[in-house]
Amino acid sequence: MNEVILLGYAAAALTSLSFLPQAWLVIRTGRTDGISLLMYSLFTVGVAFWLIYGITSNAAPIIAANAVTLTLALIILSLTAKNRLALRQKSKP
Amino acid sequence: MNEVILLGYAAAALTSLSFLPQAWLVIRTGRTDGISLLMYSLFTVGVAFWLIYGITSNAAPIIAANAVTLTLALIILSLTAKNRLALRQKSKP
Repeated sequence: MNEVILLGYAAAALTSLSFLPQAWLVIRTGRTDGISLLMYSLFTVGVAFWLIYGITSNAAPIIAANAVTLTLALIILSLTAKNRLALRQKSKP
Repeated sequence: MNEVILLGYAAAALTSLSFLPQAWLVIRTGRTDGISLLMYSLFTVGVAFWLIYGITSNAAPIIAANAVTLTLALIILSLTAKNRLALRQKSKP
């Protein structure tokens, strides 16, 4: 394994696992106030595209990174969407 | 430009620009309550690694994506860190 692939794996591990504390924070506290729903909507679709790109171009670090990130992003997105929906229901007259 | 490169650019655009509404939300409201500081610390370092990976492996979509994302992640990280620090100062006896 050469240095470039190793660097790719380090990058993949960092950017993917970084969503773990965010997902855990959202699960633990249930708070999603400061989180942008638009961000996680665009991000989740983008990560799905990266996954297909990785598979198509046979780039292992990209595949590994985005499989993990997609799972975590989906957790954050669904909990944020659930909270926003509940908030909208509550503010209805 | 073939389909794989195009897919890479679409993925790059989505995941990078997704941080724009999050950065804007943080700048506009100043609220970073639900945001994980650990996430943005790991994420920012990871994105910097991706940028080097992209440059080293000459992958244009990865370079473009991570240059934009690094800028936006740095904004979110610095404002979140600033708020956490202010909160820690306030809670001191």
